[in-house]
Amino acid sequence: MSHSLTHLDHHGHAHMVDVSDKSPSKRTATARGVLTMKPETLSKILAGGLAKGDVLATARIAGIQAAKKTSDLIPLCHPLMLTKISVDITQLNECQLEVLCTCALSGKTGVEMEALTGVSVAALTLYDMCKAVDKGIVIENVQLLQKTGGKSGDWSAKNEPN
Amino acid sequence: MSHSLTHLDHHGHAHMVDVSDKSPSKRTATARGVLTMKPETLSKILAGGLAKGDVLATARIAGIQAAKKTSDLIPLCHPLMLTKISVDITQLNECQLEVLCTCALSGKTGVEMEALTGVSVAALTLYDMCKAVDKGIVIENVQLLQKTGGKSGDWSAKNEPN
Amino acid sequence: MSHSLTHLDHHGHAHMVDVSDKSPSKRTATARGVLTMKPETLSKILAGGLAKGDVLATARIAGIQAAKKTSDLIPLCHPLMLTKISVDITQLNECQLEVLCTCALSGKTGVEMEALTGVSVAALTLYDMCKAVDKGIVIENVQLLQKTGGKSGDWSAKNEPN
Amino acid sequence: MSHSLTHLDHHGHAHMVDVSDKSPSKRTATARGVLTMKPETLSKILAGGLAKGDVLATARIAGIQAAKKTSDLIPLCHPLMLTKISVDITQLNECQLEVLCTCALSGKTGVEMEALTGVSVAALTLYDMCKAVDKGIVIENVQLLQKTGGKSGDWSAKNEPN
Amino acid sequence: MSHSLTHLDHHGHAHMVDVSDKSPSKRTATARGVLTMKPETLSKILAGGLAKGDVLATARIAGIQAAKKTSDLIPLCHPLMLTKISVDITQLNECQLEVLCTCALSGKTGVEMEALTGVSVAALTLYDMCKAVDKGIVIENVQLLQKTGGKSGDWSAKNEPN
Amino acid sequence: MSHSLTHLDHHGHAHMVDVSDKSPSKRTATARGVLTMKPETLSKILAGGLAKGDVLATARIAGIQAAKKTSDLIPLCHPLMLTKISVDITQLNECQLEVLCTCALSGKTGVEMEALTGVSVAALTLYDMCKAVDKGIVIENVQLLQKTGGKSGDWSAKNEPN
Repeated sequence: MSHSLTHLDHHGHAHMVDVSDKSPSKRTATARGVLTMKPETLSKILAGGLAKGDVLATARIAGIQAAKKTSDLIPLCHPLMLTKISVDITQLNECQLEVLCTCALSGKTGVEMEALTGVSVAALTLYDMCKAVDKGIVIENVQLLQKTGGKSGDWSAKNEPN
Repeated sequence: MSHSLTHLDHHGHAHMVDVSDKSPSKRTATARGVLTMKPETLSKILAGGLAKGDVLATARIAGIQAAKKTSDLIPLCHPLMLTKISVDITQLNECQLEVLCTCALSGKTGVEMEALTGVSVAALTLYDMCKAVDKGIVIENVQLLQKTGGKSGDWSAKNEPN
Repeated sequence: MSHSLTHLDHHGHAHMVDVSDKSPSKRTATARGVLTMKPETLSKILAGGLAKGDVLATARIAGIQAAKKTSDLIPLCHPLMLTKISVDITQLNECQLEVLCTCALSGKTGVEMEALTGVSVAALTLYDMCKAVDKGIVIENVQLLQKTGGKSGDWSAKNEPN
Repeated sequence: MSHSLTHLDHHGHAHMVDVSDKSPSKRTATARGVLTMKPETLSKILAGGLAKGDVLATARIAGIQAAKKTSDLIPLCHPLMLTKISVDITQLNECQLEVLCTCALSGKTGVEMEALTGVSVAALTLYDMCKAVDKGIVIENVQLLQKTGGKSGDWSAKNEPN
Repeated sequence: MSHSLTHLDHHGHAHMVDVSDKSPSKRTATARGVLTMKPETLSKILAGGLAKGDVLATARIAGIQAAKKTSDLIPLCHPLMLTKISVDITQLNECQLEVLCTCALSGKTGVEMEALTGVSVAALTLYDMCKAVDKGIVIENVQLLQKTGGKSGDWSAKNEPN
Repeated sequence: MSHSLTHLDHHGHAHMVDVSDKSPSKRTATARGVLTMKPETLSKILAGGLAKGDVLATARIAGIQAAKKTSDLIPLCHPLMLTKISVDITQLNECQLEVLCTCALSGKTGVEMEALTGVSVAALTLYDMCKAVDKGIVIENVQLLQKTGGKSGDWSAKNEPN
């Protein structure tokens, strides 16, 4: 068999991988993404301080709810019962916000996709609320930062060559 | 009022903007995103040619279905009846795939978020199917390329200063 | 182009067909399906008369709710705003129930899939409630009976050769 | 026919009423509900002023998203494309919060259920965030305050005898 | 830290509380709500006896389905695998119906919100089916009656001072 | 009690059966359905070989995603965390396709409904993509083929009298 993508069977057909016989273990994952925008746009989001206005709260809630919908959005993801979801949004500099999402559960599959989905939807929600003033916002560097647990063990983006 | 984010009322509270009195018009939007991965990973996806295996088809379907769920994912988006959704995935070079999503409808609000959501979920689906071989894939440059129609008129990323 | 399936583009890729420029018109569709079961099973469903117990009501509600979810279930279906859904369940003989679903709307695409989805889920709901006593129930003859409206005009299963 | 509930046909079977031939018109509805809790609980919610913390923002977002899901929650509701949703939460006195939800659209059916669903889910979300400190919170007086538009015309709770 | 709402972190930001390390235990919760309406309206609902017509069955099904959607509706609720849901509707007097919902599971968090959501949506469904004849129906006293299990132990509304 | 349908209580009211005290065990189920169509229609689906074009991939993905939504579609089904889903589509003869769906999990209830829902929605998706050329396609013989595990033990359609 020339490929080794686990989500395809030997005919190349998509399937939801059988994890029936895996043992549940504690797993966590953290993903991040960055929004790059005009400084004026970022000023409007932060106007009055981070706690003022519903912009960041709305994005956090959207990210949390999306993480719970991951198996509905990503066709080959297993349904999971997440036991923790948090979304944090911080200012990196005058034109960038960073979105972090951390998920955890005790289960048979990892929660990388849940963390990445939380990040993506929180970032899209920020775009949505700002698009009337800045359609050129770009969502960048959506990536897994680290994961723990599971058969493949711990992994961190920092220790990777690429 | 110090901010001008349309999704906040004058108290800074999130609301779904009133578009009751806007006239419906034809609107389109195209968004894109790029996945950067190891060359070996991309080879596996493309093994046997683009039409072989369900990888790209699965991502296209996931993007199309996600575009239809936009108002469920992005809290302040209006429910819409999209009349067209397409997702295209093309190889840019030995380590990058580009995802494009185009949406259209005749309605009272634009379809930028639908196109961006389609791109994001198609890209996440590709990540999901490849993560067993390459957890370091990064989703980059998720952005609106162009939109047409609506009161704010046509817009293109190419003509923007930033 | 060798195929003529409208849901595939010229590369053979799935897309949601562009109906942006179609005019809305009144459309209806009626679909049906038949459940074949042991006579004892049907007796239990009907015990005390059709109006007694929640079995048939539960199936009707499930069918109505599923018809509204069609564009979420069938990947290339357009989101629609149905203006009428009804599900009717009648006894054909001592071992068969017929499920009929009729949908209507004024819109740009037909409602055949909505009627067929309503029938299928109502039938599955009946199976679910009876499976403790009869796992061998078979759902048969799920088909479109007729449609009206739209560019392709009226159609009826009765006038078809096959 | 002895009853006159429009959601039942002449057999007493539930159906989604046929509104295919109604003309679209502008419609609005406002509903409200009241949460009664211990004064200490309300103090915690409001600690630092209404704009501090995500409690009220979370409830507003939940109410807005729930209003969009109304036809998925209430079996015989028609799918609608709401053009406006707002949720407002105000302090009535030392132990009560009032939740108001206003919805609008131009369509064939009213938006009373959408406003009531938005109120109920915003109130439940407040309960959820406070239940660790006060399980005895009661949600009261969930009711329609007023509606405008549609064949039955305007209606206001204030002008009603009961 | 001035507040003690568990759903907010020390910045006041909403998050889904980490229950990864809690042990699963058997939990139940019962909630209720009351609908107050005109006596004529209640007569129509009950016409022919409680088992006639789909009104109460529709409300029961809606409540059961909503309880399963709780984590999708209430942003900070954990996804749960309920093992029991029942909805009961009884006549209190000539103008009131009581809705009760009981949920159970063996899990890491309680099912109070599931029971309350089931009650609320069943009550809204009853409102929906009656609103053509009585828009003034009020949903009252939506509250938790009792819960069992979990670290905080059993709780009953009857033993509470307020 | 005259009936013995487990999904009804002794009043005949629908409820989600209490499985709180059942022990989890490994369970599998396989269901199938058959689509009968004109030979020309089947030729178009298969044009260029089974791996060409997105038709079968789209149906497989739709079936997999639908199996995960079973508890949202079938009112009295328990929410489950499936650990395996596969959908296979094979040609039976010049006018028939067979859809098979197999599901597995370790849980308290069986996965028969999940397998049947996967089959039904995959079949409906095939109908949808072909309906422009053949509205007369019929979905037949939707049935459970076999199940394993659970208190009622293994079951196979082949060993049944009816």
